[in-house]
Amino acid sequence: MKKIIRIAYLPQTSFFMKLLDGVATSKLIKQEIAAAVLEMKAAGKKVPHLAAVLVGNDGASLTYVGSKVKSCEEVGFHSTLIHKEADVTEAELLDIVQKLNSDPEIDGYILQLPFPKHIDEHKILLAVDPKKDVDGFHPENVGRMALGLECYLPATPAGIIELLRRYEVPTEGKNCVVIGRSHIVGLPMAILLQRNGYPGNCTVTITHSKTTNLKELCLKADIIVAAIGKPEYVTGDMVKDGAVVIDVGITRITDTTKKSGFRLAGDVHFESVAPKCSFITPVPGGVGPMTIVSLMGNTLLAAQKRS
Amino acid sequence: MKKIIRIAYLPQTSFFMKLLDGVATSKLIKQEIAAAVLEMKAAGKKVPHLAAVLVGNDGASLTYVGSKVKSCEEVGFHSTLIHKEADVTEAELLDIVQKLNSDPEIDGYILQLPFPKHIDEHKILLAVDPKKDVDGFHPENVGRMALGLECYLPATPAGIIELLRRYEVPTEGKNCVVIGRSHIVGLPMAILLQRNGYPGNCTVTITHSKTTNLKELCLKADIIVAAIGKPEYVTGDMVKDGAVVIDVGITRITDTTKKSGFRLAGDVHFESVAPKCSFITPVPGGVGPMTIVSLMGNTLLAAQKRS
Repeated sequence: MKKIIRIAYLPQTSFFMKLLDGVATSKLIKQEIAAAVLEMKAAGKKVPHLAAVLVGNDGASLTYVGSKVKSCEEVGFHSTLIHKEADVTEAELLDIVQKLNSDPEIDGYILQLPFPKHIDEHKILLAVDPKKDVDGFHPENVGRMALGLECYLPATPAGIIELLRRYEVPTEGKNCVVIGRSHIVGLPMAILLQRNGYPGNCTVTITHSKTTNLKELCLKADIIVAAIGKPEYVTGDMVKDGAVVIDVGITRITDTTKKSGFRLAGDVHFESVAPKCSFITPVPGGVGPMTIVSLMGNTLLAAQKRS
Repeated sequence: MKKIIRIAYLPQTSFFMKLLDGVATSKLIKQEIAAAVLEMKAAGKKVPHLAAVLVGNDGASLTYVGSKVKSCEEVGFHSTLIHKEADVTEAELLDIVQKLNSDPEIDGYILQLPFPKHIDEHKILLAVDPKKDVDGFHPENVGRMALGLECYLPATPAGIIELLRRYEVPTEGKNCVVIGRSHIVGLPMAILLQRNGYPGNCTVTITHSKTTNLKELCLKADIIVAAIGKPEYVTGDMVKDGAVVIDVGITRITDTTKKSGFRLAGDVHFESVAPKCSFITPVPGGVGPMTIVSLMGNTLLAAQKRS
């Protein structure tokens, strides 16, 4: 929230720029989910239950899983963390997955990636029951998304779509450039934004490391989704006036002016880009909180479908 | 083949334009598949067996299924046509699908769409065993394609990719515009062309009925894939010099100069577009024959995986 307040005083901020506030929006959605959980309880139904499988002690993974567990508490879900040492075998993980698949108490679960290198992530992922795959990473869910069938949408793209919807950002016929083609953000984002519906009906260009004319493409874009993991890569000279900019990146970069010695940067150079935008997501406080709340939404859906 | 010969005499044909000849290429691939079948026989293995489910008597569907059965004969596959009247029930079709799923003699099968309106196509499609889904339409295959995992690619996009590969058409870093976002051509084509590999690594823009600036986008495109089903929609003034143009459309249009009273037209106005192209697919004789041969390739793959 600190960042948001600071931005309001930037002298070059154009009068029409609006922040897509992921903190406020995700709070609202959490309240909606909490209300739905109370209704389920009142109807004598089981409370939604999310499990997470964590391997090893990677700092970022611990933080992410911690946030997810905390969010479960906030909305009234049960949660179970299955934490294994980094030397766990593939067979042990497959066994855990099988047990989660058949456990009627668990509505959905996630594998907190990355796993250590001796584990074949795809092999484990393919063993997840698509009906419990609340991360939306199983091929069946990815395919259902592409075909417009009911599915669990991957959390980050779902969060962005929800943010666009809640702020009523116009998308139909807009030129959208997605920077990055990852399986968990860039590609699903492109698929969702081109589909026939709202938000959607964009003319979507998907760009990546082999793209030769990114600046030119960005300058024509009405909507830019930056998901490359390169801090402050998208700068003001790449963005046209009135653009909508969604910043998926979040990287720690050194900042000696901070007590901590670092600050969090997005893929977008906020100071130069924000003044040109009609809408922009801040980092932190934009896409991040929406991602977690989308996972909660998928878990609620899983529980409702099973009850 | 007649059309190809005629084109060679067009006065405005630029010297560097090359036809992507689907007839010749598909013949070559059929020979390769036939050789693989002979090898399987020699090794005492079962010959690949494709089944097709056809409902009703739609003329186009009858023609397509007929071509598929004929292609099976040409490459040495067994084939089975299951032809039901238009009043078949959903339950009967589901029963057929279950039998095909469990029949060890059948390696793969296709549902010849469209089905009559009283049948929920998605319901039937979702019942197909993804391992026998040689059309690549089941969500699990679509998802596996998006994630770059082994799968059955949908036949038309697979045929186009193979044509680009065999003609060694450069794709990396090229700007590609896909016109049309159908689940069986446009969207998978966009996904395949953006992936990291060859053919691939294109900067892909997916356009559709809500796109506002198609001409402008096409004029910047190195590669255009036209899959909209509107005859001769892409005209010479929309294409830049040296472009690669892939024409997926095939529509009968009235032509009183022909004995038959009609001719086949693609989505591309060949006469005005071809002279500007480095490569172009003719219609007929381009994408069409490649589509059927891709289905044969998927069936061979299915048989090899099961044997």
